[in-house]
Amino acid sequence: MILEDVQSREDTRGIALEQVGVSGIRYPLVVLDRAHAKQETVGEFSLYVLLPATVKGAHMSRFVEVLTDHSGEVTMHTLPKILDDLRTRLGSDRAAVTVRFPYFVERAAPVTGARALMDYECVFAAEGGDDDVAFSLTVRVPVTSVCPCSKAISDYGAHNQRGHITITLHSRDKDIATKELVWIEELIEVAEQSASAPVLPLVKRPDERHLTMLAFDNPVFVEDMVRNVVERLSDDPRVQAYSVEAVNDESIHNHAAFARTSFPGRASDAIETNDA
Amino acid sequence: MILEDVQSREDTRGIALEQVGVSGIRYPLVVLDRAHAKQETVGEFSLYVLLPATVKGAHMSRFVEVLTDHSGEVTMHTLPKILDDLRTRLGSDRAAVTVRFPYFVERAAPVTGARALMDYECVFAAEGGDDDVAFSLTVRVPVTSVCPCSKAISDYGAHNQRGHITITLHSRDKDIATKELVWIEELIEVAEQSASAPVLPLVKRPDERHLTMLAFDNPVFVEDMVRNVVERLSDDPRVQAYSVEAVNDESIHNHAAFARTSFPGRASDAIETNDA
Amino acid sequence: MILEDVQSREDTRGIALEQVGVSGIRYPLVVLDRAHAKQETVGEFSLYVLLPATVKGAHMSRFVEVLTDHSGEVTMHTLPKILDDLRTRLGSDRAAVTVRFPYFVERAAPVTGARALMDYECVFAAEGGDDDVAFSLTVRVPVTSVCPCSKAISDYGAHNQRGHITITLHSRDKDIATKELVWIEELIEVAEQSASAPVLPLVKRPDERHLTMLAFDNPVFVEDMVRNVVERLSDDPRVQAYSVEAVNDESIHNHAAFARTSFPGRASDAIETNDA
Amino acid sequence: MILEDVQSREDTRGIALEQVGVSGIRYPLVVLDRAHAKQETVGEFSLYVLLPATVKGAHMSRFVEVLTDHSGEVTMHTLPKILDDLRTRLGSDRAAVTVRFPYFVERAAPVTGARALMDYECVFAAEGGDDDVAFSLTVRVPVTSVCPCSKAISDYGAHNQRGHITITLHSRDKDIATKELVWIEELIEVAEQSASAPVLPLVKRPDERHLTMLAFDNPVFVEDMVRNVVERLSDDPRVQAYSVEAVNDESIHNHAAFARTSFPGRASDAIETNDA
Repeated sequence: MILEDVQSREDTRGIALEQVGVSGIRYPLVVLDRAHAKQETVGEFSLYVLLPATVKGAHMSRFVEVLTDHSGEVTMHTLPKILDDLRTRLGSDRAAVTVRFPYFVERAAPVTGARALMDYECVFAAEGGDDDVAFSLTVRVPVTSVCPCSKAISDYGAHNQRGHITITLHSRDKDIATKELVWIEELIEVAEQSASAPVLPLVKRPDERHLTMLAFDNPVFVEDMVRNVVERLSDDPRVQAYSVEAVNDESIHNHAAFARTSFPGRASDAIETNDA
Repeated sequence: MILEDVQSREDTRGIALEQVGVSGIRYPLVVLDRAHAKQETVGEFSLYVLLPATVKGAHMSRFVEVLTDHSGEVTMHTLPKILDDLRTRLGSDRAAVTVRFPYFVERAAPVTGARALMDYECVFAAEGGDDDVAFSLTVRVPVTSVCPCSKAISDYGAHNQRGHITITLHSRDKDIATKELVWIEELIEVAEQSASAPVLPLVKRPDERHLTMLAFDNPVFVEDMVRNVVERLSDDPRVQAYSVEAVNDESIHNHAAFARTSFPGRASDAIETNDA
Repeated sequence: MILEDVQSREDTRGIALEQVGVSGIRYPLVVLDRAHAKQETVGEFSLYVLLPATVKGAHMSRFVEVLTDHSGEVTMHTLPKILDDLRTRLGSDRAAVTVRFPYFVERAAPVTGARALMDYECVFAAEGGDDDVAFSLTVRVPVTSVCPCSKAISDYGAHNQRGHITITLHSRDKDIATKELVWIEELIEVAEQSASAPVLPLVKRPDERHLTMLAFDNPVFVEDMVRNVVERLSDDPRVQAYSVEAVNDESIHNHAAFARTSFPGRASDAIETNDA
Repeated sequence: MILEDVQSREDTRGIALEQVGVSGIRYPLVVLDRAHAKQETVGEFSLYVLLPATVKGAHMSRFVEVLTDHSGEVTMHTLPKILDDLRTRLGSDRAAVTVRFPYFVERAAPVTGARALMDYECVFAAEGGDDDVAFSLTVRVPVTSVCPCSKAISDYGAHNQRGHITITLHSRDKDIATKELVWIEELIEVAEQSASAPVLPLVKRPDERHLTMLAFDNPVFVEDMVRNVVERLSDDPRVQAYSVEAVNDESIHNHAAFARTSFPGRASDAIETNDA
């Protein structure tokens, strides 16, 4: 029995679509791990292609087939091939894949050395055509921030809170697979060194004492955290472009305080409608 | 043209359903306001009835009609009538309504008196039949909590963070409409007095200094916050039954710390599967 | 007692920050309403400014003061003044405000005329300096979509599902307050006409029959919905720039299908990392 | 240096707390897998104990230590030991663990046999003391549901949508580790057989044709889906107690339709405040 290929019907509206694909797909994911070569985790995937003006629709099932063919392995080494497969299978000049996942790192407490795993929210993204491709790696790092104003104007104490520093590195190297990459673990270190103190999965009393005083000795605003990260990234020859954001769930104010910047700067009048 | 009433078909499986209804309905809401008599806000509604074993389905559109008939006014005075209407329109012995909404209170900063509105997440719920009815009011209050352990074991400073205290009051008064009610504003006061310091929408430097030292002078664990609330509620003759929860987004630990209790206590072996 | 203005300390790192501000602020909101002139709802606000390289931090409380000064009224008429106030109060050349809110429209069922309110998620955003400003209005409209492939290849039936069409209009008119604006209600109409059928808050059996057959007679892919919206927007002289997205929670596939495009097109190799 | 054990201070308020612990912990998880013996995934954990009235606080870090000791392996075989360890390490008579996780099953399309992994949201929960313990397993299954009313009153077509059936099995067997367990895979089958058609990760055109007509031939309300599941569970001697919920994201109505019931039935006047 012949079933019509409806998606392949010709479209006469003359409108190409920048992105057509599938999102919200949870799938086992394998990523590179500095300590253990590879790490198995779970990713939430989005895949899409550019749809030419002449075609009615994309064959959505083929996105899932490409993901299955690669067994959910998404690394700087496999991303170019995944994009190639998407372009070929979907018959498009441009394809993209984005995957959000928790990445686990064993952390040791600063004094007792007590060890436990900690999760960091990360995103890999790649988009491109034959002769150009763009990659990005995003890492979200929980940190402690002590308010410099609160400390300076109070006789004792200082309000502090959990904050999050999010660093995204961008690259356009066609041959990224051969480049020395920046490890997720390195971006975690950059973020923690830019805050008042790290957030850890397992701390005992001596560690809590150490972290409390470390944080109090290093008060930072969200603005300071972003600038501290920018200074460290600027010194790294592997870093071409980046965006940095810090958000504090303020402990005495009923709002989140945030600061963001990027390099090279985006058009200063671009609007972010995803803040609210 | 006659359209069959499919929902009214007889059902032969002999299975009554405890809850059948609609959820996720956003609708303008009018609630009682201690300072301004009434407050207009936006609620997210869930309405349901008990479905008898003999009926195939509930007429879902009638839930929306009842909500529309009452113009989204949900107060201790209107809830009994709303339940009556649901039972009558849906032909059921039992009905329930739950509405979650942000409630706004103008707050003044402790030193400068600077004023701004602050939102508190609240939930009204009512469920019942002709001869019995149960009501509940839930208020979620953001607070500051300073860790007593961190303060005690450190030479200076103490980790603190934003926490949330959630208080739910339960009542079974058929004539609740005539009873002296507990105001949302009162539960906010109880929660703030039970924490290290309040979280406010607008504070200037003198206020920040005041709140920083106030919090440092009153360190509390989540356990302390819950117990402090329980002590205050136990002294209030209007309070029949309650549950109290405190959660801290710990500023140096990568987890939330929580404590909960209720009166009268629930079956000690009941399982909460909604924690994760 | 003099309290040091820590935020005003000079910063020597030489790093300007594109965005510094507050987010996650819920506040009563007043917006324009085609049928009733004004509508009171609840908004979630984000406000920020560009922070000069020489200043250590922004005075976050001033964002809340500006919001309070304007009593949460955010319209094409007040936005320019809000931006002015933010720039002045925060001492910055550029400022931005974004507010996300549910907007309510009374809808009538197509056959019975049964009426109820329906909520639409909307976002207003404005960002700019003295001599340039950018505005955007985003409306998210729930719709029904019947799959053209499923209908074409099956002897009867066709899978359909709830989808969402999100339209964002962009404008750079300094004098936008004097321009004829595009109403939220108009964008809802454009979205519904571009789908298989509208999603309504209250439908009785004759309406359900009408909508079922209307949808079956107008099968569309997410790609079709986006293209249909683009065609309608292209005919509107008031529309300068836009982005359009359609997402289906596919009823037989375990993923969401999406399509997006924009005019003028964004750099084709820009990466969207917020898909996952 | 001696650091005071603040948590162990005596508490004089005389208030025991039903639950004290940690939540929001993401950690690698190992669960039983019918096809592959074991499956590695990622869980979000909550752990707590009953806190005696005489103790000021729980040592939160010990919850993480117990989780780390068991390397995140949570099965019917390990749960009793995890509870024992929590009671011992935290010095409490009662302990509980809850973990929410995506579980992956390879599914084959009905006609082409195309295979891909599909994720199902699951929850394990266990709570108890020395002489009593309660376990529960929750599985959330996406399904397709065709509206019987829409089909009956329309000349052609029928609105359908993605729905979710959530089944929770409860058990109080102390020796559950030795009992024949009900597999997650079995509950998925029960849910899919109770709906109009399954939702699958990868379907080709012949599969889409099959599923479209299968669904159209089996219209069900949310009420029907719950009752169909109840009938199947009632026939299973391994099932002691359960709760069942079905939710439809209605494709032409702007609300979710839901139905729930449980066995043995809960107090009919219990209020659910988590609906909204």
